[in-house]
Amino acid sequence: MTQPKKVVLAYSGGLDTSIILKWLQVEYGCEVVTFTADLGQGEELDPARKKAEMLGIKPENIFIEDLREEFVRDFVFPMFRANALYEGLYLLGTSIARPLISKRLVEIAVETGADAISHGATGKGNDQVRFELSAYALNPEITVIAPWRKWDLGSRTRLLEFAEAHQIPIAKNKRGEAPFSVDANLLHTSSEGRVLEDPAEEAPDYVYQRTVNPEDAPDAPEFIEIAFEKGDPVAIDGEPMSPATLLARLNDLGGKHGVGRLDLVENRFVGMKSRGIYETPGGTILLEAHRGIESITLDRGAMHLKDELMPRYAELIYNGFWFSPEREMLQAAIDHSQQHVTGTVRIKLYKGSARTVARWSEHSLYSEAQVTFEEDMGAYDQSDAQGFIQLNGLRLKLLATRNRKFEG
Amino acid sequence: MTQPKKVVLAYSGGLDTSIILKWLQVEYGCEVVTFTADLGQGEELDPARKKAEMLGIKPENIFIEDLREEFVRDFVFPMFRANALYEGLYLLGTSIARPLISKRLVEIAVETGADAISHGATGKGNDQVRFELSAYALNPEITVIAPWRKWDLGSRTRLLEFAEAHQIPIAKNKRGEAPFSVDANLLHTSSEGRVLEDPAEEAPDYVYQRTVNPEDAPDAPEFIEIAFEKGDPVAIDGEPMSPATLLARLNDLGGKHGVGRLDLVENRFVGMKSRGIYETPGGTILLEAHRGIESITLDRGAMHLKDELMPRYAELIYNGFWFSPEREMLQAAIDHSQQHVTGTVRIKLYKGSARTVARWSEHSLYSEAQVTFEEDMGAYDQSDAQGFIQLNGLRLKLLATRNRKFEG
Amino acid sequence: MTQPKKVVLAYSGGLDTSIILKWLQVEYGCEVVTFTADLGQGEELDPARKKAEMLGIKPENIFIEDLREEFVRDFVFPMFRANALYEGLYLLGTSIARPLISKRLVEIAVETGADAISHGATGKGNDQVRFELSAYALNPEITVIAPWRKWDLGSRTRLLEFAEAHQIPIAKNKRGEAPFSVDANLLHTSSEGRVLEDPAEEAPDYVYQRTVNPEDAPDAPEFIEIAFEKGDPVAIDGEPMSPATLLARLNDLGGKHGVGRLDLVENRFVGMKSRGIYETPGGTILLEAHRGIESITLDRGAMHLKDELMPRYAELIYNGFWFSPEREMLQAAIDHSQQHVTGTVRIKLYKGSARTVARWSEHSLYSEAQVTFEEDMGAYDQSDAQGFIQLNGLRLKLLATRNRKFEG
Amino acid sequence: MTQPKKVVLAYSGGLDTSIILKWLQVEYGCEVVTFTADLGQGEELDPARKKAEMLGIKPENIFIEDLREEFVRDFVFPMFRANALYEGLYLLGTSIARPLISKRLVEIAVETGADAISHGATGKGNDQVRFELSAYALNPEITVIAPWRKWDLGSRTRLLEFAEAHQIPIAKNKRGEAPFSVDANLLHTSSEGRVLEDPAEEAPDYVYQRTVNPEDAPDAPEFIEIAFEKGDPVAIDGEPMSPATLLARLNDLGGKHGVGRLDLVENRFVGMKSRGIYETPGGTILLEAHRGIESITLDRGAMHLKDELMPRYAELIYNGFWFSPEREMLQAAIDHSQQHVTGTVRIKLYKGSARTVARWSEHSLYSEAQVTFEEDMGAYDQSDAQGFIQLNGLRLKLLATRNRKFEG
Repeated sequence: MTQPKKVVLAYSGGLDTSIILKWLQVEYGCEVVTFTADLGQGEELDPARKKAEMLGIKPENIFIEDLREEFVRDFVFPMFRANALYEGLYLLGTSIARPLISKRLVEIAVETGADAISHGATGKGNDQVRFELSAYALNPEITVIAPWRKWDLGSRTRLLEFAEAHQIPIAKNKRGEAPFSVDANLLHTSSEGRVLEDPAEEAPDYVYQRTVNPEDAPDAPEFIEIAFEKGDPVAIDGEPMSPATLLARLNDLGGKHGVGRLDLVENRFVGMKSRGIYETPGGTILLEAHRGIESITLDRGAMHLKDELMPRYAELIYNGFWFSPEREMLQAAIDHSQQHVTGTVRIKLYKGSARTVARWSEHSLYSEAQVTFEEDMGAYDQSDAQGFIQLNGLRLKLLATRNRKFEG
Repeated sequence: MTQPKKVVLAYSGGLDTSIILKWLQVEYGCEVVTFTADLGQGEELDPARKKAEMLGIKPENIFIEDLREEFVRDFVFPMFRANALYEGLYLLGTSIARPLISKRLVEIAVETGADAISHGATGKGNDQVRFELSAYALNPEITVIAPWRKWDLGSRTRLLEFAEAHQIPIAKNKRGEAPFSVDANLLHTSSEGRVLEDPAEEAPDYVYQRTVNPEDAPDAPEFIEIAFEKGDPVAIDGEPMSPATLLARLNDLGGKHGVGRLDLVENRFVGMKSRGIYETPGGTILLEAHRGIESITLDRGAMHLKDELMPRYAELIYNGFWFSPEREMLQAAIDHSQQHVTGTVRIKLYKGSARTVARWSEHSLYSEAQVTFEEDMGAYDQSDAQGFIQLNGLRLKLLATRNRKFEG
Repeated sequence: MTQPKKVVLAYSGGLDTSIILKWLQVEYGCEVVTFTADLGQGEELDPARKKAEMLGIKPENIFIEDLREEFVRDFVFPMFRANALYEGLYLLGTSIARPLISKRLVEIAVETGADAISHGATGKGNDQVRFELSAYALNPEITVIAPWRKWDLGSRTRLLEFAEAHQIPIAKNKRGEAPFSVDANLLHTSSEGRVLEDPAEEAPDYVYQRTVNPEDAPDAPEFIEIAFEKGDPVAIDGEPMSPATLLARLNDLGGKHGVGRLDLVENRFVGMKSRGIYETPGGTILLEAHRGIESITLDRGAMHLKDELMPRYAELIYNGFWFSPEREMLQAAIDHSQQHVTGTVRIKLYKGSARTVARWSEHSLYSEAQVTFEEDMGAYDQSDAQGFIQLNGLRLKLLATRNRKFEG
Repeated sequence: MTQPKKVVLAYSGGLDTSIILKWLQVEYGCEVVTFTADLGQGEELDPARKKAEMLGIKPENIFIEDLREEFVRDFVFPMFRANALYEGLYLLGTSIARPLISKRLVEIAVETGADAISHGATGKGNDQVRFELSAYALNPEITVIAPWRKWDLGSRTRLLEFAEAHQIPIAKNKRGEAPFSVDANLLHTSSEGRVLEDPAEEAPDYVYQRTVNPEDAPDAPEFIEIAFEKGDPVAIDGEPMSPATLLARLNDLGGKHGVGRLDLVENRFVGMKSRGIYETPGGTILLEAHRGIESITLDRGAMHLKDELMPRYAELIYNGFWFSPEREMLQAAIDHSQQHVTGTVRIKLYKGSARTVARWSEHSLYSEAQVTFEEDMGAYDQSDAQGFIQLNGLRLKLLATRNRKFEG
């Protein structure tokens, strides 16, 4: 790697990325551009600006942006069209945010004439991979600096020494190590590490930040109606909302009812297993509702193909291949299926669960005439089943006849 | 079809299969053998014997069998090794019982010298397909008689007239039509039809038979520990149990906590959508626990392959292809993966949900040394991630370089 | 089925469909509309018109159309973008023609106010399924009449008696039965039945109609260059051609060199195995060339995903599901991948084979700088491979460590 | 990496691995064990022993083994059961040999008390990955030394200087660089690099080593019969042979007829495209014959599942994951399908191609009774097709009815 001249840093304003900021200045003598995005993590962004200024970043090099609508509209919703679950359970809340951050880092690099970008992800996790693969897919010449894989500040003590040596203010509660590590955005909060490292130990209640304990949730269920258009949610209880507003509302509702907690041991792309606590209140409701509306509006062939493609699709996002031809191909297939996924689902929220209890749509494929136990007026000819079974069974009969010849 | 001489009938002892029994005698003048299985549906079998006798069946032609252990050990547990879910949600409780019934029907036909079997499934549903494909796969020469596709007793009135004409006793509460139709076994209870036919209407509470309403479940959570060996559950809270005993215990636990209710619109193999209410309390706990123990004992490659194969596997079972080479091939792959799926999972049951909160195993692949946020003593070399990302990204870089040439 | 009033018949002008024409008139007393399409089967269409007139069809009810360009452009080429092969070998020449015929049958029914369509496919084959599923997908109310499944003219003798009784002229060489049955269009000729029914017997040479025996092909190889744009062939040896013209030219070239013969036992959708002799000279060249151009222009991720989806895609077309959501979803994914599949492939034709010997493209992803055995000037850092292997191997190491604990 | 004490080297006896041998001694001062395997590459192994001795290797540290039977029986044949083709065309001749070499390296390390193994694969290719992943999967503690990724002997000049400085004899024809690089074993010969690096240039004829140019092959075709048992070939023209003998015989036959040449641009696991010339004469015949025998003995469900799994299976082998749970799972599924893949296939070899012309088996599922154009005596009831089509079409009708509501 040649010496970078100007680096765009994904900057949260926190201690770790402030240390990185300073380290980049010290190590490379380069100009630093900070990029701080509001993805719905629930933190004020103003302090990030002030801190960046204090660390000597020129005002024109400080980028602070509200990406919540783009995040939900162009990343979260397309992913939910696929009913994506990694390893059967994880709603990919962290994975789906990384490509958008990389996209802006790379774009800001062009805007500011920077030749490198930098991020604060460690060398053990998936996020480094997601940041960097996204960046390379968008700009093959970009240099990516991952300080955690390069520097010698591996221990907490060394980090704090560096901070002190460079007059980076350290909040009192950051002196000691946090009991666990957190990532948050509008889709979820994830917690991992330290007190959570033993998967045989139940996660302590103080880990949860976005959802109440189901035991503490209201004793009465709450029913909501989510309206979809072409696979995306557009309204709650009849009130149209923008993507980010709608997801925020679902988060409130889900959080209040203790919906969307997940305690998972998962397989990282870099090869080891890790344990995470995820809270995805709105996303959990959304998955249930999307499955609900698909159940009456999607053809069987389309649904089963989607179900078979889904694990691969989820794996691609988890592994950092959002900006890859194969993810885009799968998205093209999935999006094609959503043309008529329009209608409304009624969901019951209660003490940690979100369940579809009713669904209706002008686009419904459900045919009471076909399925009814009552006289169906010829909608369905039961004698057709005879031929259907005979021809589906023909190869099995031939097989059984053959196999018999070679048995006992 | 040539005239059958002796027919083995899947006989529940209820009104409908009693009518079928009589109809077979009348229509074909043939001898009827009845087969009544205890699959854990929760009904006494003695009345079935008495009723069969009353309808003129010779004692040696009455087969009543307790198949609960075989059902759970050879059908339910192998299926749960796959984490099988049809259309993302359905635990296949009805589908998995049919092949076993067909297997015994075909075997009894051989034992008794019968040339045909018969069942009471209608011409609109999946069960006829499952019964018949299983039968043909096991005995290609067997004749299957499906009265519902043949007779002219399509309406309730005609059925009752036939019953009366042939002196089949009709329980008082069977005069009117049942408000919905039920199938039950040790894995689940399913309800469908009539009052449930409008998917926009919430299912009335009286439909549920095996689970309490979550609102009525205990206010305190209950924790249980399920031990697995090679992919199958073998003990609860340290107490070893036979397969059927274990599943029954899980049903009690789940039912008490309102776990395992599902309101689903699904796609039938015969081509239409139908709406079902499923209660699978034990199975729901089992799926969660099996995923939990796999999460620490199964390698990523094995797990992801399983996840990709699962929808196909579930579809095969749903469609009636249990006894098919492709289901057996998938089973061989799945079973191969379960060698080390041994250990214990702690599950929290509360108000309708069952969640893994801890898991441990001597076979665990989870490595705290690898994943730790603390100093890892060289277990993992963070600099390896650099090359890993570079080579995973190489094709994306080449692609981006190429694509750029052809953009604006 | 209610009595049809007006039926559109897929009419070849041959004896069998002439008998069907008359049978429809006699059986239903209905008006018949004939539809005869030129799909490149290599027969004159004028006789079909004359024969239809002779059988009493009104001029305005005789539809004769040249569909060759539409066939190749909208059906054959999209299918070849997928490199579709059924059961590893069959290029789907018959399967891909049926949806287009059904599409026109259904459209002509609307134009002429007909309420039914009819075809001459037998009850044992795949074509009936393909015709009818296509028709139902395009017009759910259409009635389809399949005389071979209905009439009592099952034997050759009865057919000829019917023809004579109704004054349908019988060509001399049609008195006896043909030694095998043929289907042909611009993509292929297929032969099956009678002399071909024993798969242990080599097909006699007189079966082949479109390709010379490789032994009789020229002793010198011939080289051709096929240019592609976005996945479709557009020129041969620098000469731009329309789709049908190009395929016809490839057929001439392939036929001359004995390319594209296939002797296959395949699995029909209706459940039995059948043996067919296929000649697909142009298509065989096209598949080779398309793979050739993809090899340098398609990213690995896209290619491998295509390869995994292909068998399903081919099966859908074979089974008659061209007009289905799942085929369209797969097509959307495949088409998305073809954006840069542009360039030229050099093919060697010789004695029965067509082999790629060179390929080049401005859109190439092949990087000599990356791959060279020579000094690569830093294009590729070999030390990256270390980390790549370590992290790909990490899970295997953890697995081996675990497994060891439980081995002897 | 700690300093290795004793290293097992995959040693060919050639210049490059002799340099590596010396470099290991010089660089680490360690003891070297040489392992030279006969995998059918067609070279004498005695010179390797002499050269090793000359370079100071103790006799007890020289391992020379004939692994041909194990290679074909335990690696090649299982792979051919899957009809494995990487990227649609490549028979994986190099990929499949690596795991066996690694297996023996690791075993010899145990036997000799070595703590490391070493190989001569470069940092740009797939082989390093295959060697090392196999090794780690078999012995997680083994150290692997890949000199090409470590040393500073990257140029030909430096290598020769090192050889001269350490008195390693250099054959005259090795002074200049070879015009291309070769790998060979009983399954194939592959050639790549240098004169082959431009994929737009046809490969010169002198590259081919194991097959004659089809133009130079005999002018008369040759017919052979290959007998299979449970998916593996066991005899040619009635003569039973051991696996390696059989494959060698097929190589002779194929080579003589110019069968099995492939000019391919493929995607390496490490991220770039490369061009290779492969000659797989026996393997090409074997694939054709295996497909041929499967076509009559394998059920459709099994065959289609195999076809769908194959690309993944081939990719796993190509990428070096032979010893992985997911490859073993797929193998379990594939092997399960081969129980009845027994019978004989007749193949025509002629001028570069190998084509099935006949096949027969006592295990055949082909039923002339079912498929015949003649009167079938009731083997197949054509009216069954009606119901089969209706129920397969039902969802398409419901879909078309729905979609119409929202069109024009």
